[in-house]
Amino acid sequence: MINLNDTQLSAKNISEILNRFRNLNQRIINTGSSIPKGEELKKFLAQKIDHTLLKPEANSSEIVKLCEEADNFNFASVCVMPSFVSLCRKELKSSSVKVCTVIGFPLGATTSEVKKFEAEQAIQNGAGELDMVINIGKLKSEEYNFVFNDIAAVISVSKANHILTKVIIETCLLTDEEKIKACLIAKDAGADFVKTSTGFSKSGATVEDVSLMKHAAGETMKVKASGGIRSREDALRMINAGASRIGTSSGVKIILGEKSQSNY
Amino acid sequence: MINLNDTQLSAKNISEILNRFRNLNQRIINTGSSIPKGEELKKFLAQKIDHTLLKPEANSSEIVKLCEEADNFNFASVCVMPSFVSLCRKELKSSSVKVCTVIGFPLGATTSEVKKFEAEQAIQNGAGELDMVINIGKLKSEEYNFVFNDIAAVISVSKANHILTKVIIETCLLTDEEKIKACLIAKDAGADFVKTSTGFSKSGATVEDVSLMKHAAGETMKVKASGGIRSREDALRMINAGASRIGTSSGVKIILGEKSQSNY
Repeated sequence: MINLNDTQLSAKNISEILNRFRNLNQRIINTGSSIPKGEELKKFLAQKIDHTLLKPEANSSEIVKLCEEADNFNFASVCVMPSFVSLCRKELKSSSVKVCTVIGFPLGATTSEVKKFEAEQAIQNGAGELDMVINIGKLKSEEYNFVFNDIAAVISVSKANHILTKVIIETCLLTDEEKIKACLIAKDAGADFVKTSTGFSKSGATVEDVSLMKHAAGETMKVKASGGIRSREDALRMINAGASRIGTSSGVKIILGEKSQSNY
Repeated sequence: MINLNDTQLSAKNISEILNRFRNLNQRIINTGSSIPKGEELKKFLAQKIDHTLLKPEANSSEIVKLCEEADNFNFASVCVMPSFVSLCRKELKSSSVKVCTVIGFPLGATTSEVKKFEAEQAIQNGAGELDMVINIGKLKSEEYNFVFNDIAAVISVSKANHILTKVIIETCLLTDEEKIKACLIAKDAGADFVKTSTGFSKSGATVEDVSLMKHAAGETMKVKASGGIRSREDALRMINAGASRIGTSSGVKIILGEKSQSNY
């Protein structure tokens, strides 16, 4: 098992990162100048959207509809629960839209062995991206090696299959120091993305958190914003703050420029 | 694979069960006469309580405290997330309190293979009872054989290890007809208990649902009420309606006769 580079998690290093972030003249990293207009904007947004339906009562017809919409709008992926991966793979067999699924979702407190097995199974069933939840309680217990190995167990499976892993840190349950630690551990474990939220806890993505996560993530790791993103304005705010991917159940409305009532 | 007895799930049979329930003179089954008083009441209640801490941010110290309380009050079990089973087993090694954990929790939409693997792992780590969540989306999609096989996969593991399985149906997301179907499928698959709620959805146990579930469950299968049970009065109402087990994070307050603010 690889070891965590835990010197970077020292209180001194974390508080330096946090202070540097807090002292930035412009805390929200503004990437607005590169955002296109009109039809190009729709394309630009669509390519960043994980079209998401994770509510437990979602039935097969709703999942089929999700796939059709994702294919029509050319979203980056559909994001569904593991038991619907096979169905999505079938529905999207002639599409470029990926099937993204979630691992240890939404509480993150299954064992690392189960997360790894779930990842293997999901890929066998056709998943092309994995969004895994960290073990939040172990992070709170300062068991950083556990948190690292838990993430690394899933990433070992994704990397062997050449697919992306996004690591959900559930920002609404963490202090700023814990958010930075979670990002550094995920980065050290080889994550492609850190993701703000499951959409099943107290609250979702904020511009502040996306910005802090991008600051901690650096150049090589990307940020996915998710939870509570319901309009085009919300999506653009997250992208301006540093998000490269948007997890939302309001993808269609975001592209059409309408406002949604959904909570995810 | 065993097959589901699907004739009992015919619309006619379900509506007969529901009508019979609705026509009962006394819809709430009153077992009040057998409830003891004073110190005996405390003992009576304690033996029915699964002392529960499932929030994802719970840290190791909180889990240790949960175990100490469960041992002091002689609760039926502690109910924790799978990654804390080993710790609880260690803490409770010289106690009669069981370690209960949750499978496919709280959304129920992982694959059956993952639920089975999670059950095996949990038992290896020391779990003595399993509370599994049904695949709600598949029930809504009327894929009853899937729902049956999903439950049966976990029960095959529990039965081989001589431990109890409770099947969580998440009542707040189901119609009355679906609640009855879920109970009949769980019973057919060999469940020891049906359980109302995860505590992570829109709402928790109601007296009505416990009563309906007991009516559908019959004599051989028991009912566990969980979600929102915060006081001794709540607990007694659920027991009167037919619950044999209470899942709550307010166990200590229930025994001491205080009211809790917790949501689970």
